Amino acid sequence: MLLEKYLTTRKHTETLCNPLEIEDYVPQAVEFASPPRWHLAHVTWFFEELILKQYLHEYVEFHPGFNFLFNSYYRNAGERAIRSQRGIFTRPTVELVYEYRKHVDAHMKKLLSSPISDNVEYLVTLGVNHEQQHQELLITDLKYVLGLNPLFPPYDTDRNLVADKNTTDGWISIAEGLYEIGHKSDSFCYDNELGSHKVFLQDYQIASSLVTNGDYIEFMEDGGYDNFNYWLDEGWTWLSSNKINSPLYWHKVSGEWHYYTLAGLKPVDKEAMLAHVSYYEANAFAHWKNLRLPTEFEWEAACQQFDWGKRWEWTSSAYQAYPGFSIGEGAVGEYNGKFMVNQMVLRGASVATAKDHGRHTYRNFFHPQMQWQFSGLRLAK
Amino acid sequence: MLLEKYLTTRKHTETLCNPLEIEDYVPQAVEFASPPRWHLAHVTWFFEELILKQYLHEYVEFHPGFNFLFNSYYRNAGERAIRSQRGIFTRPTVELVYEYRKHVDAHMKKLLSSPISDNVEYLVTLGVNHEQQHQELLITDLKYVLGLNPLFPPYDTDRNLVADKNTTDGWISIAEGLYEIGHKSDSFCYDNELGSHKVFLQDYQIASSLVTNGDYIEFMEDGGYDNFNYWLDEGWTWLSSNKINSPLYWHKVSGEWHYYTLAGLKPVDKEAMLAHVSYYEANAFAHWKNLRLPTEFEWEAACQQFDWGKRWEWTSSAYQAYPGFSIGEGAVGEYNGKFMVNQMVLRGASVATAKDHGRHTYRNFFHPQMQWQFSGLRLAK
Amino acid sequence: MLLEKYLTTRKHTETLCNPLEIEDYVPQAVEFASPPRWHLAHVTWFFEELILKQYLHEYVEFHPGFNFLFNSYYRNAGERAIRSQRGIFTRPTVELVYEYRKHVDAHMKKLLSSPISDNVEYLVTLGVNHEQQHQELLITDLKYVLGLNPLFPPYDTDRNLVADKNTTDGWISIAEGLYEIGHKSDSFCYDNELGSHKVFLQDYQIASSLVTNGDYIEFMEDGGYDNFNYWLDEGWTWLSSNKINSPLYWHKVSGEWHYYTLAGLKPVDKEAMLAHVSYYEANAFAHWKNLRLPTEFEWEAACQQFDWGKRWEWTSSAYQAYPGFSIGEGAVGEYNGKFMVNQMVLRGASVATAKDHGRHTYRNFFHPQMQWQFSGLRLAK
Amino acid sequence: MLLEKYLTTRKHTETLCNPLEIEDYVPQAVEFASPPRWHLAHVTWFFEELILKQYLHEYVEFHPGFNFLFNSYYRNAGERAIRSQRGIFTRPTVELVYEYRKHVDAHMKKLLSSPISDNVEYLVTLGVNHEQQHQELLITDLKYVLGLNPLFPPYDTDRNLVADKNTTDGWISIAEGLYEIGHKSDSFCYDNELGSHKVFLQDYQIASSLVTNGDYIEFMEDGGYDNFNYWLDEGWTWLSSNKINSPLYWHKVSGEWHYYTLAGLKPVDKEAMLAHVSYYEANAFAHWKNLRLPTEFEWEAACQQFDWGKRWEWTSSAYQAYPGFSIGEGAVGEYNGKFMVNQMVLRGASVATAKDHGRHTYRNFFHPQMQWQFSGLRLAK
Repeated sequence: MLLEKYLTTRKHTETLCNPLEIEDYVPQAVEFASPPRWHLAHVTWFFEELILKQYLHEYVEFHPGFNFLFNSYYRNAGERAIRSQRGIFTRPTVELVYEYRKHVDAHMKKLLSSPISDNVEYLVTLGVNHEQQHQELLITDLKYVLGLNPLFPPYDTDRNLVADKNTTDGWISIAEGLYEIGHKSDSFCYDNELGSHKVFLQDYQIASSLVTNGDYIEFMEDGGYDNFNYWLDEGWTWLSSNKINSPLYWHKVSGEWHYYTLAGLKPVDKEAMLAHVSYYEANAFAHWKNLRLPTEFEWEAACQQFDWGKRWEWTSSAYQAYPGFSIGEGAVGEYNGKFMVNQMVLRGASVATAKDHGRHTYRNFFHPQMQWQFSGLRLAK
Repeated sequence: MLLEKYLTTRKHTETLCNPLEIEDYVPQAVEFASPPRWHLAHVTWFFEELILKQYLHEYVEFHPGFNFLFNSYYRNAGERAIRSQRGIFTRPTVELVYEYRKHVDAHMKKLLSSPISDNVEYLVTLGVNHEQQHQELLITDLKYVLGLNPLFPPYDTDRNLVADKNTTDGWISIAEGLYEIGHKSDSFCYDNELGSHKVFLQDYQIASSLVTNGDYIEFMEDGGYDNFNYWLDEGWTWLSSNKINSPLYWHKVSGEWHYYTLAGLKPVDKEAMLAHVSYYEANAFAHWKNLRLPTEFEWEAACQQFDWGKRWEWTSSAYQAYPGFSIGEGAVGEYNGKFMVNQMVLRGASVATAKDHGRHTYRNFFHPQMQWQFSGLRLAK
Repeated sequence: MLLEKYLTTRKHTETLCNPLEIEDYVPQAVEFASPPRWHLAHVTWFFEELILKQYLHEYVEFHPGFNFLFNSYYRNAGERAIRSQRGIFTRPTVELVYEYRKHVDAHMKKLLSSPISDNVEYLVTLGVNHEQQHQELLITDLKYVLGLNPLFPPYDTDRNLVADKNTTDGWISIAEGLYEIGHKSDSFCYDNELGSHKVFLQDYQIASSLVTNGDYIEFMEDGGYDNFNYWLDEGWTWLSSNKINSPLYWHKVSGEWHYYTLAGLKPVDKEAMLAHVSYYEANAFAHWKNLRLPTEFEWEAACQQFDWGKRWEWTSSAYQAYPGFSIGEGAVGEYNGKFMVNQMVLRGASVATAKDHGRHTYRNFFHPQMQWQFSGLRLAK
Repeated sequence: MLLEKYLTTRKHTETLCNPLEIEDYVPQAVEFASPPRWHLAHVTWFFEELILKQYLHEYVEFHPGFNFLFNSYYRNAGERAIRSQRGIFTRPTVELVYEYRKHVDAHMKKLLSSPISDNVEYLVTLGVNHEQQHQELLITDLKYVLGLNPLFPPYDTDRNLVADKNTTDGWISIAEGLYEIGHKSDSFCYDNELGSHKVFLQDYQIASSLVTNGDYIEFMEDGGYDNFNYWLDEGWTWLSSNKINSPLYWHKVSGEWHYYTLAGLKPVDKEAMLAHVSYYEANAFAHWKNLRLPTEFEWEAACQQFDWGKRWEWTSSAYQAYPGFSIGEGAVGEYNGKFMVNQMVLRGASVATAKDHGRHTYRNFFHPQMQWQFSGLRLAK
């Protein structure tokens, strides 16, 4: 069953690439967004480097240069290419990367056809979840590189990934008290969700539905991007020095707001959920409304009572360790803990998240200026 | 009595400047550390701009160019000089700045000799506290500019501001439960301390004493600055690109660690409390010890049981709003709220803090790479 | 005959691309080195924008977005993509760019099948020469992107473009006197070669042969990169901040110098001509030898007496206008004149230069830090 | 007589500082403009380091830290403070720097009271000329720091250093032929003027008078700063990224152009000579006029026939070595030669130049974007 999960996940990654031309696999438009070729190879490297090389007897690595090229940030796994250079290497060819995938898949099948230790099972599960994360990144990074192309090429004209508005409006009231936070069941989760613990929350209310494009246009038309009083100081600096005046991918065409979707450039749908805003924008919008963002604990304590899963939702919580958190040994320990500074937590999941990958304790995190995710917001008070 | 407090505070600022030469008042070595002339004028501007101009009948501003020059970051108070340029203006002369102080003091005396409204009382109290904060900054900024001078000129050979080690060692145990956090009494506090509220804490232990220079030298000698596993990812980048391999002001002279103190360059006192480390360093040290930093709530809940007040102590808490926090109107509202992102909380007070300025609910905050404060650390587990 | 020349040149560009994979066409490793896809399209854009759109009746542009994407720096031809972004666009596909070439070729054939004006003849000739320049750039830019790939992929294992040493050694003496400089015949040349004029030269001697890799290794082994006295001040800064300690593409492998050639990584051939040095390096080498580089006038006055054409040769002349130089109107006028500051002249031609493209009055020019051309040096005294 | 010259020069430097407040001596507004305190000390260091320490028996250096602090760029004289940090050191005090001057003067008197070698005579003469250069820099650097102060403090209300227009207009014609260029007499000159040599010039005409502020305003009002066709490519980039739209120190006040002069902010005098333009601006202005700048050789061959000496005049010549130029040994050899790249030659002298310091063979040189000198232009055709 783990093998099946492995194979399904691996196949799904390749299915996502079906609409691509060879050229789409290569460029890296910006340091934080990697090209599809790199994602395809990096997730494969994870299985090769952390599992096959350690646990499959007599495994021979596919190519001696790949560890250097496709390690992302694991310092314990040796030297690696600079992150900003993932798009400047013309080789290996895309074809060779697909061969690499086949080679690793064949050996993983071999490994998983015999009984495996708990540790290997954990690592394979981690690898599968890791690949699912990269499926999401593959889509969001691809949107970034296509979206800044002045030709606005569609990825797939049938998949715009626009999300309709929630059908329920209004506020959910939560009473003051102690709430249990964090992952408890035996199923897989990341180390940063562990350490189930109590948090005391004051009375609060949280919105049933997410902010829509139409809501946000009101903020924009009310001068939201021109009034520093709505903004965090670093947000205002970010906005000023990058000349930001709308969510990412928005363009005014003949007086009307349009946005690049994965199906091409389209008029903004006012009823659809807002996406591609930074924490600074989410926070400024809430401030303009005289409301606020929920903390990640408020979100988790209330999430059974509202729909979620189409947008990553910015919370007001900085990304920090739960009580009792500890960092594992070696490369696996570098997964989450070392990023616990200067980032904000997002909760939920998005239209680009792999189907069985989201869960209500999942903690995503990004720097406050990042807009390229399908990130929206839900208000609280 | 408010007048007396006002006058004492104003006088103390000038007393701190007694040992200075005119030249010491002018340069700004780095964007975050302002010159004494600027501090002297800026705290005065606060009283002039936010109080005298609004509430003293027929008050005439001292100089039409000073609002531009001595506003720090209050956007609601109009255009202001770029922060990095506080040291490039040769004028006004230091003498003129002292006249400015006299002028404002005379008018403040006049204002405070008649009955004043609650609002004015609040603003004057805020101004006094603001000036006390700048007394601390004046000392720390001055240390910075003197400390990077290759001549290592002393500020005052009788005041090194080195702090002896705490006399008590060991761990204080705190039981799991709900603790009241935040400012409650009627006395003055900043808006970021308000909103007294309950926080649930797990069982924890917190050290009676602060880490010493000797403790930290053990970390350094064990290769602490060479092993990325101890460091947050952004901390490692910071250390690598700035070639950091010791606390600020430390120099190895003939094989022995020395540090610049306000009394000049001295051998490091191993028994004294560590200072001038960044959050990254504090965190790495704790990691190396297999321990951690306390949260700001753990600190506040335990602080009656240990000595504090000589070092600002890094906590593991990001600087965020307390429940119910709201930002005031106008320039005064810009005091704290707009900085609530990407900064870490420090608790306590330091040898450079004005005597009646510290309190156990006080929340100081800096970016994680800042070393120039008298910042140390206390361990928790 | 112009048509034939046009077609031969166009075909040669595509022949150069024969060994490429699709992936090789896309990335831009550094701002100054453009990807093959861009070169293929840009030279085509030149014919379309400056000739077909103006002079072929009812010509319809191939694609409305291509003027923006493939204009290089001609401000008179409208807005254009930022130079550093030539490698971040995944589309148009390489296939579409080849179609673009076919489309323009078909229309150019049509235009050139009827009698054309002198102006159009001039522009077509300019366009052909422009494409030849880009053939050279295509090879040098490709070498750059392949050469920094840690896999060192060969472009063509049969074409390393290493150039053997000149067979003649020794010094050529030229007597003081007036020499005629600049282009005189009716054949094509760039505007910057025009204005044939007299220059007075003192007695001088110029080397028959170019500096070899072996010569340069002596300089390196004598500490050439460690002694600031050999270097121009800005050269020393360049070397220090970029950690340069060898010509471009050189790597020490097991104690022996190797270099990336278009046929892959090879041991450095000490008998071969040095290439890929900057002006700073050329100048420092000459200084170390107690000799100097020739001026571009000395080079031109002597060039009949030595072999040249395999390396662009750095001269000591800054790139400036000849007497009587004037800048043409419109986009064509932007070809050369606006670059006449902060660049140095190179004379000769290289192994990558199109066969009938070099001539003895040709003035190439680059910023002094550029190493990526097949640039070498000849000494003078 | 050399002693007298020495003493007069030294005294004049101090006279220039008479109008200064202590605060004026300290700040460095920008890397290229040093503070008066630094100039006062650096010229003194030159005498101490290169003469007294070598040639005065038993001379003891004034302060062990001064070689580090006041060496400018002489790598052969040891480690030195980073150029950008000349304004961040609060000490030594200005008073101590004046003592340093007295100390060195006393010892120089001693040295010069006995017979000295030719070499020492040369070095003293060089030191005197060096100090005269720094007198000019002291004034121009001081203007820079005062001129960007929003209070526009005057240096001396009686010395505005505005230069009246030349009284003679019209063109001087020079016939084609060989002209002798470079320094010939026995009097002092810099090494870059040596190597008297013949240059062949074509027929040309050069203007009798310099461009005035009024002329330049015409260019500005004709959209000179908005039309890229007038500009070198790097000039246009410079102008765009620095938002330049006038000469340095110009401000539009109530619709009229004003400029900061050393006597304070004044309306621009249209009859006065233009100053504070970069090479890019000078070149663009000439281009707009359909004229050009003269080469440095044209300037030198014609200069007997026009008035000069109030503005440094940009020429179209890059700063390069004369035939036969060679770099001296040691620190003195670093004076000129190592800057021969990326700079343009200015000829003449300015209102800020020491009286007997200018000569018609003098070659000043700056990077093309520099505006802070009293730099103007003379047209040629």
